[in-house]
Parts: sequence; structure tokens; C-alpha cells
Amino acid sequence: MSELVRFGVSLEKTLLDRFDVLIRAKQYTNRSEALRDLIRKELVQQEWQSGSDVVGTITLIYDHHKRDVLIRVMDTQHDFQEAIISTQHIHLDHHNCLEIVAARGNAEEVQRLADALRSIKGVRHATLSMSSTGREIG
Amino acid sequence: MSELVRFGVSLEKTLLDRFDVLIRAKQYTNRSEALRDLIRKELVQQEWQSGSDVVGTITLIYDHHKRDVLIRVMDTQHDFQEAIISTQHIHLDHHNCLEIVAARGNAEEVQRLADALRSIKGVRHATLSMSSTGREIG
Amino acid sequence: MSELVRFGVSLEKTLLDRFDVLIRAKQYTNRSEALRDLIRKELVQQEWQSGSDVVGTITLIYDHHKRDVLIRVMDTQHDFQEAIISTQHIHLDHHNCLEIVAARGNAEEVQRLADALRSIKGVRHATLSMSSTGREIG
Amino acid sequence: MSELVRFGVSLEKTLLDRFDVLIRAKQYTNRSEALRDLIRKELVQQEWQSGSDVVGTITLIYDHHKRDVLIRVMDTQHDFQEAIISTQHIHLDHHNCLEIVAARGNAEEVQRLADALRSIKGVRHATLSMSSTGREIG
Repeated sequence: MSELVRFGVSLEKTLLDRFDVLIRAKQYTNRSEALRDLIRKELVQQEWQSGSDVVGTITLIYDHHKRDVLIRVMDTQHDFQEAIISTQHIHLDHHNCLEIVAARGNAEEVQRLADALRSIKGVRHATLSMSSTGREIG
Repeated sequence: MSELVRFGVSLEKTLLDRFDVLIRAKQYTNRSEALRDLIRKELVQQEWQSGSDVVGTITLIYDHHKRDVLIRVMDTQHDFQEAIISTQHIHLDHHNCLEIVAARGNAEEVQRLADALRSIKGVRHATLSMSSTGREIG
Repeated sequence: MSELVRFGVSLEKTLLDRFDVLIRAKQYTNRSEALRDLIRKELVQQEWQSGSDVVGTITLIYDHHKRDVLIRVMDTQHDFQEAIISTQHIHLDHHNCLEIVAARGNAEEVQRLADALRSIKGVRHATLSMSSTGREIG
Repeated sequence: MSELVRFGVSLEKTLLDRFDVLIRAKQYTNRSEALRDLIRKELVQQEWQSGSDVVGTITLIYDHHKRDVLIRVMDTQHDFQEAIISTQHIHLDHHNCLEIVAARGNAEEVQRLADALRSIKGVRHATLSMSSTGREIG
């Protein structure tokens, strides 16, 4: 962990007030902690835009009774096998499956994997959480 | 699966052109499939806003060497135990951990869990993927 | 955690010598720690034999290209949905899948789930780790 | 998948009768399927004994309130990081955690990881499921 540096920030009072309300609602203990997170969020977005090595979580909801869905979801994952660390599968009810794919790789590749899974007919919902390997946001 | 209904849509040509470019990039096979997903996305947002029973994926990046992080992340998860189905943990490198929490419960509760985890000092990045139990988006 | 009780044990020297070699190989720090584990192992076996509420891990290896395997593995899991917490899926190579099912329920039910999965044609290997809810082995 | 070969087997009637009872109880559809599994089981054991590249599932039960357990479990996993694919963590109740480690590597290494985790004071139960990469049991 690198040393802490202190510096001043000038902000419109109304903006700061709104921010203070927000960070209390978000359970932050102080402004620095909240600002640190905002900066890291920007850095992670930057990692994704510049095509770096990234980590992403893809969350799918689908009905496993529609047979082709199951096979196409699995085939797509095997096609992108290099980019997938592990997949968590939860049987929500007799029809609905929650599938969470932990992916790591080139940003563009992980994005393409998410798009490929989302576009499968029968996948009802798909989100991509853009996260980080943690190396560049220390 | 319910029956398919066909209906017409009027759209500005420029808007439709942009949409067609987008859905090709996103690997959709046709417009209906892409529109279906947009509608479901809205429905899921609605589920979250109305405090329904939802499914969410929380993705965390943290350095497990900072001892208190590890304990606070675990304690927070046990505090929200009822809302957590299962957690996937991946050791990215000697420092960085990727932790993916599969959560289910009241929208407000899952949101509070995500906020509580994000605000832990030492958690470097946290995202919440808002997904669905699949029941209301069939 | 309950209080520690100390008591003496008489053992044939040759048996104790073999045990000491074993516990060093197994990286235990002392005999009590190793004996504690042996006793808990017995208690867990007892839990499984008496049909208590148990926790079990089922590990499967199968080739996802054999289409029916995939569907039958998924259908079987949905049939036993109440007993399954979450499933982890890892794409080992272009053919082989590792699937780890975290199960909880009546011992007989979890055993039947493991047998049902193992007997699916195309499942190449299946093991059941008999574990515990932790409540009765404190 | 390789071609099927048929061959005869001679067996004591009493032994065959017992085997038939067993395979019905285990839900196998026929003897060949059951025998195939027995042979693969032997091959997997052989893989582990010869120190091949193997897959293993380590199932742990521990009380996360005992602080040192949590840190030692995590540190040990990071020490063996190369051999761990992903870990699934389930909060069984306010005290007990179920942790399932998907491991892959040299048989000896995976065994040592399992022993190291089992010997941590506070880990109440640990099992190792010896499985396979699937390559040598086709």
C-alpha cells in the first residue's frame, strides 16, 4: 500500500451537500473513502476502454427448459473458454436459472462474450459488471 | 412460453439505422430479439425500483493481505446471510481477490448489502449487477 | 467454543509411532488436533448414516458435447432443486467439464442425487464428499 | 468417443447377484454402464497415485468467527494459488461456513493443499474428492 497524500478540494456548497447526503446513504465513513472509490471507478472504465486485461462478471437469467438455450449457452462459453475462470449456476425455480460467469481477459473479448451470451434467444436477461484485475487501481 | 404477437413500430429512419448498427455489433439475429431485451431490461429496472424480490450479483475486488478487509467482508456477508445464495472467490494474484456474491431478496436489502460491501475500507472496486428472478420477465 | 478438557490415552507404542509419522505428514501441529479431526470424521459419518440434515459436495466430470448429458445433468439437478444450494462449473478443456454441486438436505436425498448424477450415461466420473452443516461437530 | 467393444465376463453368481442389487440401488440402467464407472474410478485413483495432472474438490467446514481460521484459510489458498481455479463459499448459518475449493494441478500438490487446509486449527471438517481432468478416462 502506498503512502497517503493529503490535498484540498474546492467544491460548490450545494454540490458538496448533495455528495454528503449520498455518501451517508451509501454508508461511507468519510469523504476521502468515497472519492477514492469514484476515482477507482473511473480507472476501471479506462481499463475497459483501452482494451487492457480486465475482470468481468456476466450474469444471465434463462429458462433451462428451452433446450437450445442450454446448449448454446454452454457452447458459447466453451468457445470463449480461455476468457472464463469459472461459472456459478443457481437453480432459482423449476424454470429459471441464474448463471454467473467469472471472466478474465482482454476487455474487447470479455465484452464480446457478454454480447454473444445476451443475444442467445431464450436468455432473458444479461448484465456485464466491468471490474478489474486490481493491479492498476491500487 | 406465451404466444407471439406481431405489431408495427414507426421509427425515425436515422434512429432505426443507428439501432441496426448497434444490434449487428451486439450479435443479435433480428430486431424483435433486440427489442425484447430492451423491454426486459426496463422491466428488471422496474422490479428494482419497486422493491420486489430480485436477484443481484455483487462483484468485489480487494487485497486479502489487508487483514481487516477480509474479516469485514465476511462479517458483512454473514449479517446479510438471508440474502446471499453463494459466493465465488477467485485468487487473481498474490494480492488481489475477486469475490462474486450471488444475492437474492428484497431489492432494497440487496442494494444495502452492495453498499455495505463497497464502503468497506480496502475494497477497491465493487459493482452491483441488477438482475431478476426471471418470473416477471417471461 | 466449549471449554477444553484434558484426558489421558493409552496406546501401543508402535501404533502411536505410526500415528506420529502420519500426523507430521499431514501437517498437524499436535496429536490433539489430529485426534479431534478423527472424532469429527466419525461424527460426520454418523450424521450421514442416521439420515440427518447434511452438507455434501458432488464433483462431476463430463463431456458437454454429448448433448443429452448436458440436458440430463441439468434436469436431474432441477428435480432435486430443494437440495442444491449452488453449482460451480469449470470448462476444463474443449470437451471436459468439471461441475461441483453444493448440496444440503436429508442424507438419503443428497445420496440419491449423487447416485442419479453418477448414473447418467456420459458422466465420466462422480464423487460425493460427505460433509456436515457444522452444527453437531462443534 | 471411441467405438464400443463387447466382451464376455465370467462371474460367481452370488457376486453378480449382489452387484445387480447394488447397481439397481445406484440407479444404473445396465451392467456395462456400472462397470464402465468402476473402471474409470480405478483409472482416476491411478492418476492420483502416479502424480499426474488431476482435478480435486476440497470441501471445508469452519466457523468464520474464529478470526485466525479465516485468515489462515485464505493465506493457505493464496500460497497454493497456482493450483486453485475457484472457490465457492456458502454461509450455512451465523457461525458455519462451507467452502468448496476447485483445484487442479499435480496430484501431490493438490493433496498437500488439502492436508494444509485440514490441519488448520478451527477447520472442523475437510474432505478431498479425487477427480480427473477427464483426458485419460475417455
